[in-house]
Amino acid sequence: MCALPFVLTPREEIERRIEGLRTRMEEGGVEVALLVQNVDVFYFSGTLQRGYLVVPLQQEAVLFIQQDYERASLESPLRVEKVRGLRDLRGFRPLLQAKRVGLEFDVLPLGLFQRIERSFQGKEFLDISRDILSVRARKSPFEIEQLKRSGEIVVHVFSKVPELCKEGMAEVELDALLQAEGRRRGHQGWLRMRGLNQEMANIAIMAGESGAFPSYPDTPLKGYGVTHAIAQGASWRRIGRDEPIVVDYGGGYNGYTTDETRTFVIGRLPEPFKGAYEVALEVLHTFEAHAKAGSNGRDLYELCLKVVRRRGLQEYFMGYGEGKVKFIGHGIGLEINEWPIIARGRDEVLEEGMVFAFEPKFVFPGRGAVGVEVDYVVRRRGVERLTDFPIEVISL
Amino acid sequence: MCALPFVLTPREEIERRIEGLRTRMEEGGVEVALLVQNVDVFYFSGTLQRGYLVVPLQQEAVLFIQQDYERASLESPLRVEKVRGLRDLRGFRPLLQAKRVGLEFDVLPLGLFQRIERSFQGKEFLDISRDILSVRARKSPFEIEQLKRSGEIVVHVFSKVPELCKEGMAEVELDALLQAEGRRRGHQGWLRMRGLNQEMANIAIMAGESGAFPSYPDTPLKGYGVTHAIAQGASWRRIGRDEPIVVDYGGGYNGYTTDETRTFVIGRLPEPFKGAYEVALEVLHTFEAHAKAGSNGRDLYELCLKVVRRRGLQEYFMGYGEGKVKFIGHGIGLEINEWPIIARGRDEVLEEGMVFAFEPKFVFPGRGAVGVEVDYVVRRRGVERLTDFPIEVISL
Repeated sequence: MCALPFVLTPREEIERRIEGLRTRMEEGGVEVALLVQNVDVFYFSGTLQRGYLVVPLQQEAVLFIQQDYERASLESPLRVEKVRGLRDLRGFRPLLQAKRVGLEFDVLPLGLFQRIERSFQGKEFLDISRDILSVRARKSPFEIEQLKRSGEIVVHVFSKVPELCKEGMAEVELDALLQAEGRRRGHQGWLRMRGLNQEMANIAIMAGESGAFPSYPDTPLKGYGVTHAIAQGASWRRIGRDEPIVVDYGGGYNGYTTDETRTFVIGRLPEPFKGAYEVALEVLHTFEAHAKAGSNGRDLYELCLKVVRRRGLQEYFMGYGEGKVKFIGHGIGLEINEWPIIARGRDEVLEEGMVFAFEPKFVFPGRGAVGVEVDYVVRRRGVERLTDFPIEVISL
Repeated sequence: MCALPFVLTPREEIERRIEGLRTRMEEGGVEVALLVQNVDVFYFSGTLQRGYLVVPLQQEAVLFIQQDYERASLESPLRVEKVRGLRDLRGFRPLLQAKRVGLEFDVLPLGLFQRIERSFQGKEFLDISRDILSVRARKSPFEIEQLKRSGEIVVHVFSKVPELCKEGMAEVELDALLQAEGRRRGHQGWLRMRGLNQEMANIAIMAGESGAFPSYPDTPLKGYGVTHAIAQGASWRRIGRDEPIVVDYGGGYNGYTTDETRTFVIGRLPEPFKGAYEVALEVLHTFEAHAKAGSNGRDLYELCLKVVRRRGLQEYFMGYGEGKVKFIGHGIGLEINEWPIIARGRDEVLEEGMVFAFEPKFVFPGRGAVGVEVDYVVRRRGVERLTDFPIEVISL
């Protein structure tokens, strides 16, 4: 095996990303960015190795690595320096001289911030989280390629459901089999989600009323989980006939996460699920007919809601009661909660190259849930599906 | 299926934990603790639902829930109040009146801290991370029972290796099959690790030189991973004959994480691995003969190092070069990086009820690694293994 059999991030890709960040830093009056979160460091440097990435507005960006220096040097096209810790960065002139330093306020722990403050006294610290999220929101052709490979894992896993899903099997058994299928195809192992307490199972399988059980995740369907210490996803509930079996799965390839959902059924889907699924598809088709670069997410949401209202299902749309979520679409990429967010009242213009999951779903309290989730790339004249797996209910 | 088929945390357990925190708060002059991290909230309240846990020194602790109130009320024995966000906590008198408020500085993001500062002006904020870690370090009989159930998943998975591991199979294929075995037995889905950027695969399979490849994780063996965006664990490398196959697996039951390692081989283990494994076992037996409540981790580490030095293997012990780690044991519980930490020069006294993974391992650069990892409960007169799976090298 060669030392690095991975698809590394090309140099021009890294340079373009850093330039995007610099543009936003300049607008915000930030002289140097000091990045600590592993995913941000990976995005802007091409390596996940442990350290700090310093991006001055003018001078060369430098990756300061605590561990592993050798591996980081092989993976990143940037200048890599070996350090023992934060204090070793004090000798770096652009950081030393800067008055206004940008940090990731949304993920930087207070304790680490205090160490940064002590190491670099007399500076003003500014939040550049939103600048980073904004750069990361538009995907390059290289990134879309990684996302498509991630989508291929999803297609493989969905296509295995008819063979592996059996009546009487526990949700968690099907979860085990399907995750194994994804992993054997090179699923990276887990999905990342930005922020404190943000956790997301690779797969969530919810049969019958499992899809309607309330829990904390900011998703329309949550699942029981096998323990209240996880409180999401598959449970020990057995999969039955004539009830919706919702499979929500995220591929993971070379860091890039996809997120799609299909509804399966052994036998026939009864009402209200059958009708609700048809409305979900109607919402999806309406969305596809209108979304493109330049569309506003707020308008698209209202358009979808209009379809749902016409069918009288607004009470169950995107969750029920307290569990209702505000969004119908969310960006995907290195993390599963990226921009754009297509949500009620949120002013957000779709840009070419943005990639997101769109998920019209309906939750009927105490009974269950149905829905579909499809990943899209925003193009000039429309939106393009990331995978070609059928969107209809699949009878097993 | 009944609404909550889970083993909930008993009320007296929650009360005892909160009393432990109060004792430390009082010592530190903290009047109220405001907890936000999901695992800490779960530990002290019994539910993972999204919200804030407020523990006053004198008055009743209250769990303020954003979502899901209903589920939190079913799971937690504490008083639960429904809130829309942080600002709704301002009406809570003990928090309003307190001058010194304790927060989790080690995980609290700066942005959220600033919102807390704005919502509760004129207060002094103190770090109670170490108080929390210290309370959590000693496990109750209830917790040890959950850890034993978690260990049973590990034993099941290890016992499946002889059947599932085949020559020529990629590490990641074996990973897929073994994780599926764990999940079918009720593995909760993932392991938690405290702190920014802390991620740990449920299983890491490293055959031959994979065990020696450098990467960022603070563990002696890291693995290639299937992508540099993960950079740990199983890879596409094929498993061969006469080479070490290291399987490092963590069970997850009801929130509680175990962490054990065994070395397998198809054929015969060659040198230097065979000899090194014997030394690993010698270290383990020496440790078992001396460790008990009252032992100091620093002394135990030196004792182990003495064995290793006598065999001339110190260069390879617990990693090689830059990748060497300082610890040989780490606490396990709701997170995989709990206290105690048994490490070089670290003054830490073992207490009855502490549970930790002990992992003597050897890394030979460019060649591979071997080792064993066993979980222990600290008892008055010694340490007790959490599982009974054999510790010898297993020939397949």
